[in-house]
Amino acid sequence: RFLQNGDPTMFEPFWRGPIGESATLVIPGWQTMSYFSDVGNLCWFLEPSFEREVRRLHRLVGNAAVEGYHVLVGTGSSQLFQAALYALAPPTADTPLSVVSTTPFYSMYPPLTDFLSSGLYRWAGDANTFDGDDYIEVVCSPSNPDGSIREAVLKSKSGKDIHDLAYYWPQYTPITQMLAHDIMLFTVSKCTGHAGTRIGWALVKDKEVAQKMSKFMEQSTIGVCKDAQLRAAKVLGAVTDGYEHQLATAAGGDANLLFHYARRKMAHRWCALRAAVAASGIFSLPNEVAGFCTFTKDTVTSNPAFAWLRCEKQEVEDLESFLRENKIITRSGTKFGADQKVVRISMVDTDEAFGIFVNRLAAIK
Amino acid sequence: RFLQNGDPTMFEPFWRGPIGESATLVIPGWQTMSYFSDVGNLCWFLEPSFEREVRRLHRLVGNAAVEGYHVLVGTGSSQLFQAALYALAPPTADTPLSVVSTTPFYSMYPPLTDFLSSGLYRWAGDANTFDGDDYIEVVCSPSNPDGSIREAVLKSKSGKDIHDLAYYWPQYTPITQMLAHDIMLFTVSKCTGHAGTRIGWALVKDKEVAQKMSKFMEQSTIGVCKDAQLRAAKVLGAVTDGYEHQLATAAGGDANLLFHYARRKMAHRWCALRAAVAASGIFSLPNEVAGFCTFTKDTVTSNPAFAWLRCEKQEVEDLESFLRENKIITRSGTKFGADQKVVRISMVDTDEAFGIFVNRLAAIK
Repeated sequence: RFLQNGDPTMFEPFWRGPIGESATLVIPGWQTMSYFSDVGNLCWFLEPSFEREVRRLHRLVGNAAVEGYHVLVGTGSSQLFQAALYALAPPTADTPLSVVSTTPFYSMYPPLTDFLSSGLYRWAGDANTFDGDDYIEVVCSPSNPDGSIREAVLKSKSGKDIHDLAYYWPQYTPITQMLAHDIMLFTVSKCTGHAGTRIGWALVKDKEVAQKMSKFMEQSTIGVCKDAQLRAAKVLGAVTDGYEHQLATAAGGDANLLFHYARRKMAHRWCALRAAVAASGIFSLPNEVAGFCTFTKDTVTSNPAFAWLRCEKQEVEDLESFLRENKIITRSGTKFGADQKVVRISMVDTDEAFGIFVNRLAAIK
Repeated sequence: RFLQNGDPTMFEPFWRGPIGESATLVIPGWQTMSYFSDVGNLCWFLEPSFEREVRRLHRLVGNAAVEGYHVLVGTGSSQLFQAALYALAPPTADTPLSVVSTTPFYSMYPPLTDFLSSGLYRWAGDANTFDGDDYIEVVCSPSNPDGSIREAVLKSKSGKDIHDLAYYWPQYTPITQMLAHDIMLFTVSKCTGHAGTRIGWALVKDKEVAQKMSKFMEQSTIGVCKDAQLRAAKVLGAVTDGYEHQLATAAGGDANLLFHYARRKMAHRWCALRAAVAASGIFSLPNEVAGFCTFTKDTVTSNPAFAWLRCEKQEVEDLESFLRENKIITRSGTKFGADQKVVRISMVDTDEAFGIFVNRLAAIK
């Protein structure tokens, strides 16, 4: 029913399994009372255990460089996105800095940029049609909504990039290289499925940019909830522990291996979705992409967190409305800078919701 | 050492006591994963147990009306303050709406209003010198920094008020009436001392304003951490339970009664501070104010969370610097729209820090 969002409830059964117990958080009434987590740190509200687990997980997966990077914590990666805009835009400029991203772009980028009518930055649409030297280009890879692998398309020396890597995890795409961009954003929502905990992190190369981003969180929310950071540390730690323990015992199955478990599940769902699209006959999906994953050491196809579904039937002009009539709630392509014959559908909802969706889709002629 | 902040670590010993155990939070790895808390609620990310405990606590204390009010949750009351600005400012106006507050005002109001150079609203300083009909007046009562009881000073029909009631709790001031303003902001930081949990709440009369404020949290951070809300619910629930249990058993002492415990402690500290000021001879404090508290049913003096300390010595021009030379870290009056012969000092730090502070202060001649 809520397939218009990317609510990652798919992961819940994994966390009900053997690994889940070690991720249980217990906080006595007298703990985490102070505003401060680490007074000596550039990001004074960063819990040391959270930083440690972030670095440990990246070292395990090999998807992003952590040596020489500052780790920042945010109330979800949305807050870190805004913090990056704040840090990269000159504080005193005559006109707001342009923020662009290749179409189709994540539907939240325009409102996140513009909802306060900031004089510092302003949404300027598709990066491919942007003309100018000064800008912030947001690169979401794998892309929300269409799952494609992206690189920055603008190359001006004075331009700045933000890399939103929320989906650069092995369950969604083969890890083909260790990325080392200036600003890289991640979130536990899409990595482990803990969206309700609202914790994201940024890996930032430049100290001054990291300081300004930290200042944003300080002003916006006086730091980030400690309990949530401790929970995220537990959860990320359990994921890494699961792999380390498995290697030690050489036990079978993937009940302790989050990325293997989730990848298998995503692959089944993509298989079911492609079968439903074939059964219906009026839809199309982006082509399957494969690559060698340096983490799992095998060649695998990507399994994006969203299906970017297009309707090939002439008469259907507004696909979101058409699907709603068929009791499938999706988000229209128009919200992503694309046309209304395409929609985004969540692939990470519960088994039940996903099962109902593919059955309904297959029946549409 | 950190007396320039209002880090409420004073409360920690209470939570290490008998009540603390019942406030322990346990969250299994598979819980609170979804973005959503209550899909049917105007504030869809509000945990029902948190809302319940907020209403229950206000009914116990009698400091604010809850019947007919919408409850909103925010990542601390700073986020709710910004949400209120966003909700009250017209979305399309030629000039930003003026935000004012009576001097001395909380030092964070100006940066919270202006840090993104929003086109919607702009900090306009002291409410007493403001000229115009359209504005947002922020009323902080009891006042941070000086502890005084405040009411709105501007009375235009088209003006809007935000009431910041972070300190309107029995440990800081007698509860003299049940307030029922349009927008009232509270935070667990100052109520129970759990600053690190970053949870605040708003009581909002108008549905449309509540919806817009909720929309702000949705855009700014895609809702508010669930784990933090569950923790805050536990903590607030433990406070109310403590009073209900005490009434039932008629046991002595205040180890189960947060407000009584904290009021006693605050009163001791104010006593010690006034003695130190007298011993030194070069400082002055606001006059002591007393009133009948409808919650504790007795006449008590107020015990503000901050001391607004003025230096009466001619030669001392910059009191913050002067005190820093004497190893006392405070926040200058200039940050609050006042002069530099006055500073704000936290009264809610640890016993140790407070003890060192009063000893150092008494020795200054």
